[in-house]
Amino acid sequence: MLKHIHKSIDNLYPEMVEIRRFLHQYPEVSFKEYKTAKYIADFYEKLGIPCKTKVGGNGVIATLKGGKPGKTVALRADFDALPIQDEKDVPYKSKVDGVMHACGHDGHTSTLLTLAKVMKEYQQELPGTIEFLHQHAEEYSPGGAKPIVESGAIDHVDAVFGTHLWATTPVGVLQTSKDVFMAGADRFEINIQGQGGHGAYPHETKDALVIGAEVVSGLQKIVSRRLDPLETAVVTVGVFEAGKTFNVIADTAKLIGTVRYLNPDIQEKVISEMEKIIKGICTANDGDFTFNYFKGYPPLVNHKEEAELVLEAGKNVEGITKREEVIPVMGGEDFAYYMLKKPGAYFFTGANKEGNPYPHHHPKFDIDERALPIAAKTLIEAYFAYQNK
Amino acid sequence: MLKHIHKSIDNLYPEMVEIRRFLHQYPEVSFKEYKTAKYIADFYEKLGIPCKTKVGGNGVIATLKGGKPGKTVALRADFDALPIQDEKDVPYKSKVDGVMHACGHDGHTSTLLTLAKVMKEYQQELPGTIEFLHQHAEEYSPGGAKPIVESGAIDHVDAVFGTHLWATTPVGVLQTSKDVFMAGADRFEINIQGQGGHGAYPHETKDALVIGAEVVSGLQKIVSRRLDPLETAVVTVGVFEAGKTFNVIADTAKLIGTVRYLNPDIQEKVISEMEKIIKGICTANDGDFTFNYFKGYPPLVNHKEEAELVLEAGKNVEGITKREEVIPVMGGEDFAYYMLKKPGAYFFTGANKEGNPYPHHHPKFDIDERALPIAAKTLIEAYFAYQNK
Amino acid sequence: MLKHIHKSIDNLYPEMVEIRRFLHQYPEVSFKEYKTAKYIADFYEKLGIPCKTKVGGNGVIATLKGGKPGKTVALRADFDALPIQDEKDVPYKSKVDGVMHACGHDGHTSTLLTLAKVMKEYQQELPGTIEFLHQHAEEYSPGGAKPIVESGAIDHVDAVFGTHLWATTPVGVLQTSKDVFMAGADRFEINIQGQGGHGAYPHETKDALVIGAEVVSGLQKIVSRRLDPLETAVVTVGVFEAGKTFNVIADTAKLIGTVRYLNPDIQEKVISEMEKIIKGICTANDGDFTFNYFKGYPPLVNHKEEAELVLEAGKNVEGITKREEVIPVMGGEDFAYYMLKKPGAYFFTGANKEGNPYPHHHPKFDIDERALPIAAKTLIEAYFAYQNK
Amino acid sequence: MLKHIHKSIDNLYPEMVEIRRFLHQYPEVSFKEYKTAKYIADFYEKLGIPCKTKVGGNGVIATLKGGKPGKTVALRADFDALPIQDEKDVPYKSKVDGVMHACGHDGHTSTLLTLAKVMKEYQQELPGTIEFLHQHAEEYSPGGAKPIVESGAIDHVDAVFGTHLWATTPVGVLQTSKDVFMAGADRFEINIQGQGGHGAYPHETKDALVIGAEVVSGLQKIVSRRLDPLETAVVTVGVFEAGKTFNVIADTAKLIGTVRYLNPDIQEKVISEMEKIIKGICTANDGDFTFNYFKGYPPLVNHKEEAELVLEAGKNVEGITKREEVIPVMGGEDFAYYMLKKPGAYFFTGANKEGNPYPHHHPKFDIDERALPIAAKTLIEAYFAYQNK
Repeated sequence: MLKHIHKSIDNLYPEMVEIRRFLHQYPEVSFKEYKTAKYIADFYEKLGIPCKTKVGGNGVIATLKGGKPGKTVALRADFDALPIQDEKDVPYKSKVDGVMHACGHDGHTSTLLTLAKVMKEYQQELPGTIEFLHQHAEEYSPGGAKPIVESGAIDHVDAVFGTHLWATTPVGVLQTSKDVFMAGADRFEINIQGQGGHGAYPHETKDALVIGAEVVSGLQKIVSRRLDPLETAVVTVGVFEAGKTFNVIADTAKLIGTVRYLNPDIQEKVISEMEKIIKGICTANDGDFTFNYFKGYPPLVNHKEEAELVLEAGKNVEGITKREEVIPVMGGEDFAYYMLKKPGAYFFTGANKEGNPYPHHHPKFDIDERALPIAAKTLIEAYFAYQNK
Repeated sequence: MLKHIHKSIDNLYPEMVEIRRFLHQYPEVSFKEYKTAKYIADFYEKLGIPCKTKVGGNGVIATLKGGKPGKTVALRADFDALPIQDEKDVPYKSKVDGVMHACGHDGHTSTLLTLAKVMKEYQQELPGTIEFLHQHAEEYSPGGAKPIVESGAIDHVDAVFGTHLWATTPVGVLQTSKDVFMAGADRFEINIQGQGGHGAYPHETKDALVIGAEVVSGLQKIVSRRLDPLETAVVTVGVFEAGKTFNVIADTAKLIGTVRYLNPDIQEKVISEMEKIIKGICTANDGDFTFNYFKGYPPLVNHKEEAELVLEAGKNVEGITKREEVIPVMGGEDFAYYMLKKPGAYFFTGANKEGNPYPHHHPKFDIDERALPIAAKTLIEAYFAYQNK
Repeated sequence: MLKHIHKSIDNLYPEMVEIRRFLHQYPEVSFKEYKTAKYIADFYEKLGIPCKTKVGGNGVIATLKGGKPGKTVALRADFDALPIQDEKDVPYKSKVDGVMHACGHDGHTSTLLTLAKVMKEYQQELPGTIEFLHQHAEEYSPGGAKPIVESGAIDHVDAVFGTHLWATTPVGVLQTSKDVFMAGADRFEINIQGQGGHGAYPHETKDALVIGAEVVSGLQKIVSRRLDPLETAVVTVGVFEAGKTFNVIADTAKLIGTVRYLNPDIQEKVISEMEKIIKGICTANDGDFTFNYFKGYPPLVNHKEEAELVLEAGKNVEGITKREEVIPVMGGEDFAYYMLKKPGAYFFTGANKEGNPYPHHHPKFDIDERALPIAAKTLIEAYFAYQNK
Repeated sequence: MLKHIHKSIDNLYPEMVEIRRFLHQYPEVSFKEYKTAKYIADFYEKLGIPCKTKVGGNGVIATLKGGKPGKTVALRADFDALPIQDEKDVPYKSKVDGVMHACGHDGHTSTLLTLAKVMKEYQQELPGTIEFLHQHAEEYSPGGAKPIVESGAIDHVDAVFGTHLWATTPVGVLQTSKDVFMAGADRFEINIQGQGGHGAYPHETKDALVIGAEVVSGLQKIVSRRLDPLETAVVTVGVFEAGKTFNVIADTAKLIGTVRYLNPDIQEKVISEMEKIIKGICTANDGDFTFNYFKGYPPLVNHKEEAELVLEAGKNVEGITKREEVIPVMGGEDFAYYMLKKPGAYFFTGANKEGNPYPHHHPKFDIDERALPIAAKTLIEAYFAYQNK
């Protein structure tokens, strides 16, 4: 049967691409993916596969109960986009100003929808139940996975698998880990309160912009000086906003950023060092501050046996030329929450588009669409392997 | 006659306040003061004083030709506002989101309009001609004064006087200088081009935000180390914009700011040092940049004799308790252009509102309205003094 | 026989302590360990064990040829001290101002000398040959190990073992690695050339001290932003020297420091980033510089089989309660050069002195002397195990 | 008589140069000028002019009581040198390693000694009394002038005059001010206490060197952001010392520097801002500190009438081609203490050596010796002018 399924997937390749490109043109940012969620739900309705919407937010879960007994396995695809301006020069470029599928979630969604369409045809012969888990808001903590898990939607599920199209890995390469696979990912906001005034009279003000700049430089020392060199962490300030006009000294400065780590002790150390540095620099400059640290996705830890199943499953997929265990990736993933609750594994499907060197979250990010059927086949192979386990 | 004029001004005090508060509620930023200009023109139309509009942009000049021979003197008031959010808690608070008369130009305009209404009544006895010069766009270089001068609008004028309501000087104090009174004021924009990417992979990017922060700190050394301590300069970065979302490393950072100086050699030195610092820091961080420096208003240099006239004129104004020469003020003023073309003087009319410590350009800036009639009287006294000179 | 040897070692414990404390009081810095080398050579002369001096510098190698056939194994102990002021309050405190055995090499030397004295008694029954390799200048690159290897002194040797008394590991714990055990360790010198002058006239100078401070801050970004977060590196500036008197602006600033890494690619990346940062900051400040980077000890990579022998050998040593494989240590060790040439393994002998929390190279560093016999026994056990391999 | 005196001074020019060059070769740093003081005392003894030694430290005052009645006037020359390495290539280069007359005090001393030798010949005709005031320790606060004043040594004096050979002013130019002439000059020492350790383990330490570098950068904001741009101040860190060896993280860092100001309010503001910045940066980095601020010489304020006398006196000196009032000089001078106690004036005697662009305190500093007789003549002219006042 799997051979036929692979064939069917191949036959639907043009539609797979079409769906992906449609979604690519109409991206929606995290927690606001209303139209995308409706598109997905409509798709299942047309297929005649029952689905629940508004699961833990904008989540959509479609349930395909097979004709044969077996375990219940969720296959997960996320569908939110990013607040990035699309700078690619392609016909399917984003039509929404300032929003872009710069992480491949459009491809994830297309992969899962197409796989559902195929599997609907094999429903009678299918052992077990597939839960097509379309998750919203992966890009923005607290994310969609946590409320989905908390809603009880996977309580009855035996395992969860998922994949990420990975733009910096060549097509044909399957990557996973049997342990920590992706980093813990937190978000923080620092608001510095100075005292504004005329740009020509700095001595009558407390220049929040200058304080903010100093905080950015100060934070660099956490990784370089305060953490064990053998441990791993990233502290990135992604946003710096201060001031409105050239000749007015800024009252406030806002710094927003992310912290990544593999080890929970390091997370605590980073938080306490950040607090100390911000406080010290504000003291030195007579400024005040608020520091809000939002603990985000924990490290994604794959389950060993399921990760081995995935690596095995890849063997049967045409086009996969390399299957490898890799060291942890610093990106965060709220797939982590599924792994805290249920067995399963997450893996990368190589999707590098030749000649496009741009990483995830870059304004010129793109993927090689030939990776979509590979992703679909690996997921369904893992599903069957798990049934036979 | 002057005694009667002072009396008439006092009688119009309620209207003066009303006009000022109306303008305060409907501020318009530099170069977009269309409604304000129309309001002014309408006012003169109602008075029956002929006026020219669109002078050098949004400028309005009304001409009151006196019944007696004499010199032609322009009295200038600026009328633009700032892109600052009004944070005062008063009934006449700005009704325009993000725009505010945080520098008192509403009061300047009200002062001059009210003075025009008074002087219309004394037209027959008036020696010479008053040009009521309502200037747009003082707050944003290249400003309104330059195009007004270039339009030829003051070619026939003998002298120009003007005043600024000064919020940090007590009501009753008149301040001016017989030489350099206000600083040269320039604007700059630094655009740093890095290479964006995922917040968890700094090593694959060139973090423009971190470079920008370093530039802000680096610029501090110009004043502290590179200039003669006996010279005077300010380098302020008023705006720092980088990044859109917490987990994406910023591609670009934009720094916008102002430079103030009293001595043109210092201006050149600051420019060359800025260039060197930005270039060096970008070299150190593998980033690119563009650095645009817009030379703005030159230092405002009063004419000695006219400044003396103003100091004398203050003697006759009830409510003025102190007249003083002051050291230069670091704020820039495009009144400077009039002084390069014609004799005249600029002065400050103390307008500190008791209990309000906020300086010009602050979100809680306000003035004591009792300063308005004082300003009007000092201007008209200076006008008559100049006629008799 | 080994049981008797252990017993003999225990009997010599008082002498072992005495030797260590004597050396502790008369430390000599790297490459100047003349008296210490003489002390060692005299010791062997008294024992009647032939020894070569001035091996590759101040190195001393004594050769104990056993009465039975077997392999030739070098046991290595280093004997140089550090330019640190001893701040301990103990009777055996350093008597040399500014020099201190702050790394335990006094203990290494005492361990090996005492072991030699014991083994001399067992010479007839001894299989193979022990080379007691007393190495100078471990603390200061290019170190003593490299010239010793280059002198051909270990060409005939079959394997090399060595240990470090480790002050942050409890007594009784044996630690080693079957792969990378210690980091690559380099040294650098940055000389910044500004232009000096009177402290009151910064604008007539190029302040090398301010440039140097900026370089120190700039270097922090290498680890925090320029390297893959999963890689490991340390960039430490250990010395900053600028200026001689408070009111003279410094002509030059000298920064001296160390770089640690586990992966040679990272070493190259750090060098190129350092160069870029120093150059950029000097450009920004009109200064010149020289940057000398001295590649020091490469990463110390143990040989798997010999490391396993050591872990096994520990079993037979009374007092060893834990034997563990550990992640790499960031400190450098020129024992690395022996491992590039011959099989062997390096290990740590736990030597934490209760109540003394100070790490290696700290002015209050000390060791628990009970670790000395444990080190001696583990070395000789490893020797015998290697003979039987 | 003055004509003859000028002639006599010219005749002694070779000796004047010889004395200056001798002193130049044997410089002594502040408070350790024992040999120089003895040289001076011996000189007076040979002349038969009575002198007191050890006045307020190493000071020497010789008293020449004239044969005619008149006022008592002190002429002051300082005689200490600086801890700077002489890098000039001249036959009279310093013979003391690391010490140099880099400020011209050798010339001051030679000028006054030669003038004394001349005036001894005119003693009978001399009106009043000359006190030849040779002051030690001008370069290092608290200086020599304060204890000399406190010793009562000038209680009986009517006025004090003094000059500085000024290397950046052309020979023939006389400069002074009728008001503030030189800045207030303070000294500070910042000791940062971190926690040392091995260079490979920054996370186990508190890196005092990195904290020190941050303090240096942080202090730049005082002048650039915290002081009124129209005020004048310099904050210079002249010395940065941290660490002894490349692979040991520094326990402590020492920063020593100077503050210059013209206005006592600014002095207080600088101190409080320094304290705040140091404290904040130490808080941010978990370090401790001590901050010692030594208020040094106050601003040197000339007395108006005596400054006018000096400007007039210059008229009669051959070789003086320009006499000018100048804006304040940022260098400090403990001549200030004499001015707080007695009338008098300080002035600069232009001494620029053609082709030598190096300022005071530079390793290649030198003076044009033709300025020495000009200085001597101006001093004695001022003396006579004061007698006739």
